[in-house]
Amino acid sequence: MTTVKKIGILGASGYTGSDLVRLALRHPACQIEVLTANAHAGQPMKAVFPHFSSVALPDLTTVEAADWSGLDAVFCGLPHGTTQAIISQLRKDQPGLKIIDMSADFRLRDPQTYASWYGHAHEAVELQKQAVYGLSELYKDDIAKADLIACPGCYPTATLLALAPLLRAGLIGAEDLIIDAKSGVSGAGRGLKQNTLFCEAGEGLSPYAIAGHRHAPEIEQELSLAAGQAVYVNFTPHLVPMARGELVTCYVKLQEAKKADDLYQHLQDFYAEHQFVTVLDKGVIPATSQVRGSNYVHINVFEDRLSGRAIVIATLDNLVKGSAGQALQNFNLAFGLPEETGLEQLPLFP
Amino acid sequence: MTTVKKIGILGASGYTGSDLVRLALRHPACQIEVLTANAHAGQPMKAVFPHFSSVALPDLTTVEAADWSGLDAVFCGLPHGTTQAIISQLRKDQPGLKIIDMSADFRLRDPQTYASWYGHAHEAVELQKQAVYGLSELYKDDIAKADLIACPGCYPTATLLALAPLLRAGLIGAEDLIIDAKSGVSGAGRGLKQNTLFCEAGEGLSPYAIAGHRHAPEIEQELSLAAGQAVYVNFTPHLVPMARGELVTCYVKLQEAKKADDLYQHLQDFYAEHQFVTVLDKGVIPATSQVRGSNYVHINVFEDRLSGRAIVIATLDNLVKGSAGQALQNFNLAFGLPEETGLEQLPLFP
Amino acid sequence: MTTVKKIGILGASGYTGSDLVRLALRHPACQIEVLTANAHAGQPMKAVFPHFSSVALPDLTTVEAADWSGLDAVFCGLPHGTTQAIISQLRKDQPGLKIIDMSADFRLRDPQTYASWYGHAHEAVELQKQAVYGLSELYKDDIAKADLIACPGCYPTATLLALAPLLRAGLIGAEDLIIDAKSGVSGAGRGLKQNTLFCEAGEGLSPYAIAGHRHAPEIEQELSLAAGQAVYVNFTPHLVPMARGELVTCYVKLQEAKKADDLYQHLQDFYAEHQFVTVLDKGVIPATSQVRGSNYVHINVFEDRLSGRAIVIATLDNLVKGSAGQALQNFNLAFGLPEETGLEQLPLFP
Amino acid sequence: MTTVKKIGILGASGYTGSDLVRLALRHPACQIEVLTANAHAGQPMKAVFPHFSSVALPDLTTVEAADWSGLDAVFCGLPHGTTQAIISQLRKDQPGLKIIDMSADFRLRDPQTYASWYGHAHEAVELQKQAVYGLSELYKDDIAKADLIACPGCYPTATLLALAPLLRAGLIGAEDLIIDAKSGVSGAGRGLKQNTLFCEAGEGLSPYAIAGHRHAPEIEQELSLAAGQAVYVNFTPHLVPMARGELVTCYVKLQEAKKADDLYQHLQDFYAEHQFVTVLDKGVIPATSQVRGSNYVHINVFEDRLSGRAIVIATLDNLVKGSAGQALQNFNLAFGLPEETGLEQLPLFP
Repeated sequence: MTTVKKIGILGASGYTGSDLVRLALRHPACQIEVLTANAHAGQPMKAVFPHFSSVALPDLTTVEAADWSGLDAVFCGLPHGTTQAIISQLRKDQPGLKIIDMSADFRLRDPQTYASWYGHAHEAVELQKQAVYGLSELYKDDIAKADLIACPGCYPTATLLALAPLLRAGLIGAEDLIIDAKSGVSGAGRGLKQNTLFCEAGEGLSPYAIAGHRHAPEIEQELSLAAGQAVYVNFTPHLVPMARGELVTCYVKLQEAKKADDLYQHLQDFYAEHQFVTVLDKGVIPATSQVRGSNYVHINVFEDRLSGRAIVIATLDNLVKGSAGQALQNFNLAFGLPEETGLEQLPLFP
Repeated sequence: MTTVKKIGILGASGYTGSDLVRLALRHPACQIEVLTANAHAGQPMKAVFPHFSSVALPDLTTVEAADWSGLDAVFCGLPHGTTQAIISQLRKDQPGLKIIDMSADFRLRDPQTYASWYGHAHEAVELQKQAVYGLSELYKDDIAKADLIACPGCYPTATLLALAPLLRAGLIGAEDLIIDAKSGVSGAGRGLKQNTLFCEAGEGLSPYAIAGHRHAPEIEQELSLAAGQAVYVNFTPHLVPMARGELVTCYVKLQEAKKADDLYQHLQDFYAEHQFVTVLDKGVIPATSQVRGSNYVHINVFEDRLSGRAIVIATLDNLVKGSAGQALQNFNLAFGLPEETGLEQLPLFP
Repeated sequence: MTTVKKIGILGASGYTGSDLVRLALRHPACQIEVLTANAHAGQPMKAVFPHFSSVALPDLTTVEAADWSGLDAVFCGLPHGTTQAIISQLRKDQPGLKIIDMSADFRLRDPQTYASWYGHAHEAVELQKQAVYGLSELYKDDIAKADLIACPGCYPTATLLALAPLLRAGLIGAEDLIIDAKSGVSGAGRGLKQNTLFCEAGEGLSPYAIAGHRHAPEIEQELSLAAGQAVYVNFTPHLVPMARGELVTCYVKLQEAKKADDLYQHLQDFYAEHQFVTVLDKGVIPATSQVRGSNYVHINVFEDRLSGRAIVIATLDNLVKGSAGQALQNFNLAFGLPEETGLEQLPLFP
Repeated sequence: MTTVKKIGILGASGYTGSDLVRLALRHPACQIEVLTANAHAGQPMKAVFPHFSSVALPDLTTVEAADWSGLDAVFCGLPHGTTQAIISQLRKDQPGLKIIDMSADFRLRDPQTYASWYGHAHEAVELQKQAVYGLSELYKDDIAKADLIACPGCYPTATLLALAPLLRAGLIGAEDLIIDAKSGVSGAGRGLKQNTLFCEAGEGLSPYAIAGHRHAPEIEQELSLAAGQAVYVNFTPHLVPMARGELVTCYVKLQEAKKADDLYQHLQDFYAEHQFVTVLDKGVIPATSQVRGSNYVHINVFEDRLSGRAIVIATLDNLVKGSAGQALQNFNLAFGLPEETGLEQLPLFP
């Protein structure tokens, strides 16, 4: 019999927060006790997200007014930069609490890298040292013991699941890695921006943050660890007219005498025991619509027309495996529950 | 402890069939034993629907080659007109089998109405007499005892849940009922048609089957029963550029001295014990995106600018409550399971 | 040889304003001299709308800093409520100027109706009396002589073109008019609102402003004039996931002994000489995608399943015939140019 | 005064053919005399494309029944492989006719390359030798004298406009060219295919034809000519949920001592006199929605995070500059008309 854990969710008025609510409500070991959203404090959740009209939830509250005592875990879905102070305080006040952070605040291991990409010094350097990078499949054991879990960004999750095992195994080169990424619009959040209006983002496609996206240093950090050397990548994201979904097309160089098929075989083996990562049958092309709404990742490897090269493609739902789903997967690992608990939902197609 | 039921799904290569597979795979009392799809017989399900790449399923087979013995229930998601012969045969061969039909073949109680709308005589008139109309909330007790359940069409489900209780209660008039309906494209199925191509259906809206849609007689049949008199309706469906979702805007006349608020109150009371039908808070406007992927129905009532009139609006996911979800809800009723078993998934938003 | 007219456009940073720029740039008798957008003053137009990157245009300026002398006409695409003061001043300063207003400020002939729907007294009542309602096909002669033209709203344009001739001719009843309207998202403008974000408006449909949309009194004003009696309508708009396009499904009662075919024939005759309004061949269903980007209106009439009733459907592009295109059509009429000048673009399909 | 040319369009029932009709109808020197579409012969064009309901056009006919005498030019929008025999015959019967082919049949200069990519020997090798590759900006003079113009594919047009000048000028390397391409769904044509259904292509993204798309040899042919050496490319197209639009993200290596800025400057200079190709202001990111419906191409160059590399991005409307628009541009060149005649339409945004 599963013991129920009491949880709080910081930042429940964003897409990431609300998708966590969706999943946690049906998780047999989660009981949602606290939902914060400062701008909507006092409102019922269904006033902010009417798709929760048919279920019972605590009203939204401010971070300050929330009662954190008695909770087992807190998930943070706050905008980056705002999380460090709040989590520092929480750790002080509620030492036993497991914290699962979905923001970018504790992902970069090096405070200087953080400062140079985010424009200000990290405000919780000591805490940063304790944080475990929450890519479930790669850091399972560390996550199981962690008190502060920094869940990866959506793009890093897809990219690292595709490339880190190949670099670790010395199958691909660490140079000239080109990651052409495509994401749905929910990745930009629920805040009001002109470029995410229906009339601006619909029926069109464009790159953004070319050579300057903040997920690049995160990808480089983990690929460097995997390769055992400093890795730099070209990471070019594009905005696609769909709400959910993310796909990375990775152009890689094969190590000498290696073939695309060696990459395929290695990924097959590597993920054999990981139920959320599926290496598709040979030739089957990953598509974002095939994982929508689920925690699954689809990966495949293709020969390149250029000799000595291969193409590795991975796709996931940016709000689920790219954020709230992986956070819940880490919750399961941290509390010793079966990894898939509450995450069994199959993709919604069409 | 739930006893597991063995089920078969006829027509698993359509959107309705595959959505039933999605739900049944996570239903604790369903074990999928047979999947038919004549044009794809011999193929694994994931070759037809790659979103099932991460789960185990029986291969597709023909209706003829399937082994029906030992099954407890069969769901039919075949195109209308093809189901009558197959079901007749099944009933003969496997008398104990519960049959839950998602096609239109057994919905119309009057064989002549069937013949006039479908262009040929009904081929299983005796069976038709035994069929129970599977609108879960209205015919719960009959469904519990039925061997052949004819699940309603998607439009009738939305319309009847909105209007039948009001007609029964004498709150609205039986004349001049105008139902302006809007549906996503999945309602047209996975077959190849020019008007459902992305470039044709996308970024545009148009009515279709004006004054001639086959869901009209089904709506009229049930509203007539509710009203205790012959009811005719204007039913005008529109095709909307979204995959899932359906919304009916019903323009009704109030009975003398009745107000929109009386309708609201009655629906509130009527659905108090029905967990899948939510009468929204006053003033909250139903939207298809708020029920997507779920078995929930959202309803609300609005005052009209024209005196003596009101507007009743209902929305649902045409593939779930409008088809596969309601079929599973009826399965639960027929086998004495809690009505919501396997249907707890919350709406996927965005 | 056409004499070129110098024009100014107030509110060039909205969708309506920019669509007028698109059309005016290719109009042989328009020379754009002034573009205002207070929040973007000093910027080049292409910084606000990159689709103008390949053409030359004056920089954006404030209303105050603009030089109005020497202009022949001014188009106003400002939000409603802000236009009255600006136009009053302009009329004082530049008496010879023709003013073509695309806002709602001068559409309602009765100042009290204006006050009750817009929440404040009309600030230019005298000017209001001079304004001509700019529905090109119905008020051609008045427009030709007008100095201040109040272009209709997008919904009223579609609705009135469909129904006004039928009411005038006594073919349909003035009671129980139900107008179920559907619009693309651009109708809500380029301002930042949560409900027009891609993730909110995409893949979904919902009604809005039920029984309270400000286009209702405008429709009623003109239908009352056409009918020679007070007309009230049910007008229920819906937001559809497409950028452009609008369609009204009008449920009407036939006058005694009249048939849907009489309506069809009358509209055919009425619009025979109006090149922008096409009554489609019998049975052809109007679709928004068939008029996208153009000034054309498609109309058709259908028999209802309910006897004594008919369905009249009209579709147009809300930014063109529903706004900027009709404004330019009125410009042509006001300056004695062929009505179609600069408006010959065919629909963009797909 | 422009002399009017009589034209015929082969394959008028496809998206390419119909977009040419849209443009040619408003071209001051085009008179459409013949429209063929074998499967729709005898029908009026508006029955196949209702957006032409408001204009006069000849009825559709078969290729065999069409009267080619008296025509000045023929545009071919037939599927590849079917065009060679028809054009051979036409050239024999009507020697004076200018033929502008939008299919792939005459693009590849080497018949063996054709045979290996298209699976059968070229059926008109002699004619192939006479064909001019119709990339307007690069082969202006040849096009002016040509009788048979093979218009480039949509992807090659975007890619070559971005890269060919840079290779010619020795600014980028000929190795390791990676072209990650994204296209709207209209590129797949109006034929019935499961993967272009709304429910399959909508709300999702996936690559296709990985390492095997037939536009690759066409790109390689022209880049090899530009580089003066054999060039091979990685060309990976993706299907994006939008009707029109195409964008290529090209990852290139800089020649020694060259910088992204040198590429930018060279393209600026190169296209200074070409009105349809706009090198955007520095930092402005190309977006498909900014060229929709127009013949414009937007290009820009960005620094890469990887040293020694740059990113060149180009976008166009696949049906206009990528097909029908460029065909008309070539028509203008071939008949000595100003290059922009009939192509002045500005992008439709939103």
